[in-house]
Amino acid sequence: MKFKTISFKNGKLKLIDQNALPSKLKYITCKDERRVEKAIKDMTVRGAPLIGVTAAFGAALAAIRAGNKDKKSFFKKVYEAINILSVSRPTAVNIFWALERMKRVLDAAGDNDIASIRKSLIREADKILKEDEAVCLELSKNGAALIADGDSILTHCNSGALATAGIGTALGIIYYAGRQGKKLKIYADETRPRLQGARLTSWELKREGLEPVLICDSAAASLMRQKKIDKILVGADRIAQNGDTANKIGTYSLAVLAKAHKIPFYVAAPVSTIDFKIKTGSQIPIEERAAEEVICFDGKYSAPRNIRVYNPAFDVTQSEFITAIITEKGIVKPPFIEGIKKLKISG
Amino acid sequence: MKFKTISFKNGKLKLIDQNALPSKLKYITCKDERRVEKAIKDMTVRGAPLIGVTAAFGAALAAIRAGNKDKKSFFKKVYEAINILSVSRPTAVNIFWALERMKRVLDAAGDNDIASIRKSLIREADKILKEDEAVCLELSKNGAALIADGDSILTHCNSGALATAGIGTALGIIYYAGRQGKKLKIYADETRPRLQGARLTSWELKREGLEPVLICDSAAASLMRQKKIDKILVGADRIAQNGDTANKIGTYSLAVLAKAHKIPFYVAAPVSTIDFKIKTGSQIPIEERAAEEVICFDGKYSAPRNIRVYNPAFDVTQSEFITAIITEKGIVKPPFIEGIKKLKISG
Repeated sequence: MKFKTISFKNGKLKLIDQNALPSKLKYITCKDERRVEKAIKDMTVRGAPLIGVTAAFGAALAAIRAGNKDKKSFFKKVYEAINILSVSRPTAVNIFWALERMKRVLDAAGDNDIASIRKSLIREADKILKEDEAVCLELSKNGAALIADGDSILTHCNSGALATAGIGTALGIIYYAGRQGKKLKIYADETRPRLQGARLTSWELKREGLEPVLICDSAAASLMRQKKIDKILVGADRIAQNGDTANKIGTYSLAVLAKAHKIPFYVAAPVSTIDFKIKTGSQIPIEERAAEEVICFDGKYSAPRNIRVYNPAFDVTQSEFITAIITEKGIVKPPFIEGIKKLKISG
Repeated sequence: MKFKTISFKNGKLKLIDQNALPSKLKYITCKDERRVEKAIKDMTVRGAPLIGVTAAFGAALAAIRAGNKDKKSFFKKVYEAINILSVSRPTAVNIFWALERMKRVLDAAGDNDIASIRKSLIREADKILKEDEAVCLELSKNGAALIADGDSILTHCNSGALATAGIGTALGIIYYAGRQGKKLKIYADETRPRLQGARLTSWELKREGLEPVLICDSAAASLMRQKKIDKILVGADRIAQNGDTANKIGTYSLAVLAKAHKIPFYVAAPVSTIDFKIKTGSQIPIEERAAEEVICFDGKYSAPRNIRVYNPAFDVTQSEFITAIITEKGIVKPPFIEGIKKLKISG
């Protein structure tokens, strides 16, 4: 990719400030877990895989800042950081998954000295990042096999290099298929209210030399009716045992419309997005965000300020609307419950 | 209503500047057809019934400005104004319908003197306005019969007092049902890209003492899934003989989703919105508007400036997705082709 969304060097975490895009490519530097927590909460970083990696580094930063003197206080500080980071956003499971891995390193530290525990934590965060890079590539390769030359693909929100440490999930597949020489037409939903499609997907596709066509979310159905969409590719924030998938608000809408128009609807996500603990999507907590996201754009109000707003950040798409789930370990088709069980065993 | 969207007095047409809402309640005054044309094109006025009434007054203003000297030149100027106004926006049929009525007055003028022809034209425009007021009320009364106490209703775009000369069509029904003492919960789609739901529907419902809940267009499906929507009510820009309905982009999306969730989907429109000349919705021209509507909000850009954008202002909902069409002459149910034929005969 022509940009690096996340990197860690000399004890500092560098992140693209995604709230500044597309007008500015700006980076922020995080030196402690509080800054990381803020970046996740205010969506400076977003995208399920990316916030997982970011949270892991948040724990590593806490270990760096925790000092060398008192081991008890070191443990306390890092565990606290993990707790703080784990409630930064509720829907994407990757945060919990990544922090669980960091916690396991801490739990297993035993008699090691602080310096070596710290090193292990940094190493684990770095491993999570590198794994995500590799996983994106593998997943994208798997997904590209489903894409035909000449396909017209609709995507929602941003599930690209800005949403991961690698080339992305749904957009990763598009990049991979493009590198295979397949000519594609890409439609990007603007994705209200945070406009990740307009701000981020448009920006990164153009930066990679692709020319997407941007549409309002509500125009997708009309394009489907006109037979201008061959496939729909989206990412995921959390997938249940039965394949039910939480993703950016509007995903469920697209999935129902896709079924009505007989268009394949694919979810692309690393196995780390699967929550093996929950049976169905009804168990996924859906974050509701501030009214301002809907009624205020860059300081300008588009509705009466005291209007009531319902602003769920995500919705759940029941697995009956999903054609296949594309992971780094292969493509899972219905019945999802069996395919997902196999992924767990192979992990 | 607590505001007057359109009024004509002393040879001047006064209109609420809908582009200034909700932050300012501002009026513009039109003294000639060019100003009217501009107001329709830049959406200072919008809403199918309202732009019909406005266009009629545009022709009347041309007659006022055409002078008293030369009858030939008078006719030429007014016919020209009608031609100019009739291409101001292509989708809503009400403009053509209203201008056709003005043209008929002109055609029938014969040997009358200029002053009396002018008077007839003003009288016709005024009649179109008053009829629209009456039609809105009748339609709203008819539609209110379908609304139950406690209903939760979703509406799209703005089809209220700001879209007509009266109390509105879809919103008119909501007002009427409210006046009957029915307690309703109203959800308003923000309606990208021009945000008529956020800017106009929210504003006018609140002004009338109602407290709608604003949602992003893409959240509607999720609400339907949660069984929080009992009925969907929308307006229309043009209806074909078979009931196919052009309305604001996103309407088709809602209609397909409504069918998938078994929710009644009602179109509310005056008979003047029916285009008795066309058989199906495929014959309705769909206006495409500037990319800036999608990527620029109040001077601030939300996407790379050179991004390609597809921005259709309307879509067509096939009649199979429509539960009923509510008009001032009664409620038309499937088979629409027969019901619409009867409306034509009774007209």
